[in-house]
Amino acid sequence: MKKDLLTTTHLTLQEIHNILETAQQFAEGMVWKPETQKFVANLFFEPSTRTKSSFEAAERRLGLDIIPFEVGTSSVLKGETLYDTVKTLEVIGVNAVVIRHTADNYFDELAEGISIPVLNGGDGCGHHPTQSLLDLLTIRQEFGSFEGLNIAIIGDTLHSRVARSNADVLSRLGANVVFSGPKEWFDVERMPEGCRFVPVDQAIAEADVVMLLRIQHERHSDGEKINVKDYHLKYGLTVEREARMKHGSIIMHPAPINRGVEIADCLVESERSRIFKQMQNGVYVRMAVLKRALENQEGGIGYVAADQKWPVAY
Amino acid sequence: MKKDLLTTTHLTLQEIHNILETAQQFAEGMVWKPETQKFVANLFFEPSTRTKSSFEAAERRLGLDIIPFEVGTSSVLKGETLYDTVKTLEVIGVNAVVIRHTADNYFDELAEGISIPVLNGGDGCGHHPTQSLLDLLTIRQEFGSFEGLNIAIIGDTLHSRVARSNADVLSRLGANVVFSGPKEWFDVERMPEGCRFVPVDQAIAEADVVMLLRIQHERHSDGEKINVKDYHLKYGLTVEREARMKHGSIIMHPAPINRGVEIADCLVESERSRIFKQMQNGVYVRMAVLKRALENQEGGIGYVAADQKWPVAY
Amino acid sequence: MKKDLLTTTHLTLQEIHNILETAQQFAEGMVWKPETQKFVANLFFEPSTRTKSSFEAAERRLGLDIIPFEVGTSSVLKGETLYDTVKTLEVIGVNAVVIRHTADNYFDELAEGISIPVLNGGDGCGHHPTQSLLDLLTIRQEFGSFEGLNIAIIGDTLHSRVARSNADVLSRLGANVVFSGPKEWFDVERMPEGCRFVPVDQAIAEADVVMLLRIQHERHSDGEKINVKDYHLKYGLTVEREARMKHGSIIMHPAPINRGVEIADCLVESERSRIFKQMQNGVYVRMAVLKRALENQEGGIGYVAADQKWPVAY
Repeated sequence: MKKDLLTTTHLTLQEIHNILETAQQFAEGMVWKPETQKFVANLFFEPSTRTKSSFEAAERRLGLDIIPFEVGTSSVLKGETLYDTVKTLEVIGVNAVVIRHTADNYFDELAEGISIPVLNGGDGCGHHPTQSLLDLLTIRQEFGSFEGLNIAIIGDTLHSRVARSNADVLSRLGANVVFSGPKEWFDVERMPEGCRFVPVDQAIAEADVVMLLRIQHERHSDGEKINVKDYHLKYGLTVEREARMKHGSIIMHPAPINRGVEIADCLVESERSRIFKQMQNGVYVRMAVLKRALENQEGGIGYVAADQKWPVAY
Repeated sequence: MKKDLLTTTHLTLQEIHNILETAQQFAEGMVWKPETQKFVANLFFEPSTRTKSSFEAAERRLGLDIIPFEVGTSSVLKGETLYDTVKTLEVIGVNAVVIRHTADNYFDELAEGISIPVLNGGDGCGHHPTQSLLDLLTIRQEFGSFEGLNIAIIGDTLHSRVARSNADVLSRLGANVVFSGPKEWFDVERMPEGCRFVPVDQAIAEADVVMLLRIQHERHSDGEKINVKDYHLKYGLTVEREARMKHGSIIMHPAPINRGVEIADCLVESERSRIFKQMQNGVYVRMAVLKRALENQEGGIGYVAADQKWPVAY
Repeated sequence: MKKDLLTTTHLTLQEIHNILETAQQFAEGMVWKPETQKFVANLFFEPSTRTKSSFEAAERRLGLDIIPFEVGTSSVLKGETLYDTVKTLEVIGVNAVVIRHTADNYFDELAEGISIPVLNGGDGCGHHPTQSLLDLLTIRQEFGSFEGLNIAIIGDTLHSRVARSNADVLSRLGANVVFSGPKEWFDVERMPEGCRFVPVDQAIAEADVVMLLRIQHERHSDGEKINVKDYHLKYGLTVEREARMKHGSIIMHPAPINRGVEIADCLVESERSRIFKQMQNGVYVRMAVLKRALENQEGGIGYVAADQKWPVAY
């Protein structure tokens, strides 16, 4: 069975633990490379520094060969379907694809007929499983487990890829998740059962993990535009709020950071901050899900006997 | 003598057979890598998923190093000539270039002064030799030879890169080539001697190979715009027409496919279809022409004695 | 101490000689590769064929792994600072960055907090140290030393990245530098002490090295637009002027070339021309500064003990 990574919801708790354990081993220096030459392609239909570069770093650390794919020069411009694009990569020998796409659940189109694993690098406003997994790894490294931890997810919950799915997976793992930020951005209907809204000062003071969300300016309609100074004072992690955080608590943010908005500039690399550590963990998590996708997979373009009239067997 | 691949017309039948034989050996698992580090660059002045990715896959399978070249960030924007761009790549150590360009016969500009092989990835409406060669390989795998085969080339012959050159090379190899599709798109003057136009139902019923052409919407002027549903019924490979195909006959298409236009959606991956097989063969053909270009070539940037006042000898 | 390459002014004469000596050894066939896998990223915020391709070739010759970075699809579009972009690359394991940027002295923003070397691939109208170094290498190969050489820098001194810094470093190395071209483009205030303006016929007749500058059409305001034919006759290296050059003197140009403007078309690959030789030397110089940046550097993403609660120590 092929080892896609589509959403954290598709993963059992055991699978999550296995991925985190493998990622931690990579963090501790484990080396793993496939026995034969393996190819991947990264299809990014939306801008990204972090996720794409992180996958690229992970792929190179595993010794994979990368077939470049640039949306701007691809046949997608000629109206080719995502299915045909991915199928093409499959038949030319690509062993796994990483895809970021603007459409929610774009991977449904690939469920039938594609025989290589699909790793979701973010879809629409829906899911971003490697981001969720790197968040989990960072928390696990800090606290050892998730049971009973207080997690405060603060900010632009409406437009965040990870707010809902992080809340969901953290609840499944035993953490207490609360939301905060502008109350009008909190839609209880879209949130996992049992999640509460809490005023920002209380949320920050009680949290073991303050998980800030990026304001997705580019996803806001004109009517939703916010005043960034005002936001910082009302809902941001100011120096004053940070001073009231619990002993041993940490700060997380998926980045890119709007410095001085979600978080005070001087806190980005402060002692409590795990923001750049998260990015580092992103490489280990992506190595883990690539290993999971590629190990035990038959490699490359199939052998074809010289005199064979093959059925179309891709 | 350097081993360019400019057009199939430049190749003798013996050279074609040699390339196909090497490609078939790669299909059967042959491994070949150059003895020293070799560099290639892929210059694509037009969008392409298939051809570029296929070259990239072939290059990596041969262990070549690829110098990225992006038109959008290159000095071509500053008005640099194609000659100077390619010469620059040559002097920095590139051993072969793959070029796709909008200008017919762009490679004439490179005939003098460039000492590395040029592999044509498609020029204007003129030639696309690796596409022709992968079509030939696919037919050869199916039928063993070309002598006496009935080939029907159907569709947008006016704007196709491969229609004329495929007809030409298939005729030279002994096949009977007919054209079909909208009659106003068939220009007998531009076609190889002996090629006839045949109504679509007859063409499909008599063919061993139904070779569909992609409608090049992006090359059509406003006056030429077609109704796609109408096209499918009149000239497309419908389910009904496919049912009247000969026993053992196959379907080909260079892709990207306009599903439901040139071919019914459900036939794309049907038993007769060799469409994705063609793409797979594309990698083997490109490995073969790269091997041909690079083997027996002196490698890398030339050695220069420390105290030498060299003549300009590149 | 990390080995940035920001400007030639930051380098001592001894450091310059060391880099040129290493580059010459690479030109003579020296092989050096780091002992462990090393990553670099090339951040080009401006178009370039030559510099980017040359760095890419140098990096691959050294066996480095390259994390692709494309401005057009990066989070810079979401307003991320250059600091955060580079810091991100650092924490995901990149060992050195090459940056070309439109802002003068962009690297000042990176002086604190970034622990990997920064190699300047050109900033604003200010510096382009690898271009200067490849010019120096080309002159050194030809004449053995710089002492007493007559260097004429001719052309668009106002908009050139290299005019001022080349004049500066060549003067420090003992050469006599004069400027020529349109007199209104010569700003004595911006030039190193002791540099004179000389009419073009005299400058060319007296020079050991005629160093032409590219007309930076894309940096000229409307009022500055020049007539290219007129320019060639008045200030260009015409066939007539070349005939009056000294025995043993050479022609240089940083390229891309405006053929028939700064230099007669037929002189670009003439016996005196070192234009393509300069590009070849660019690869060796870049190998040298990359070696300088990477050797003795601790590699990769740091090891983290499984049970450690780390301080933020990236």
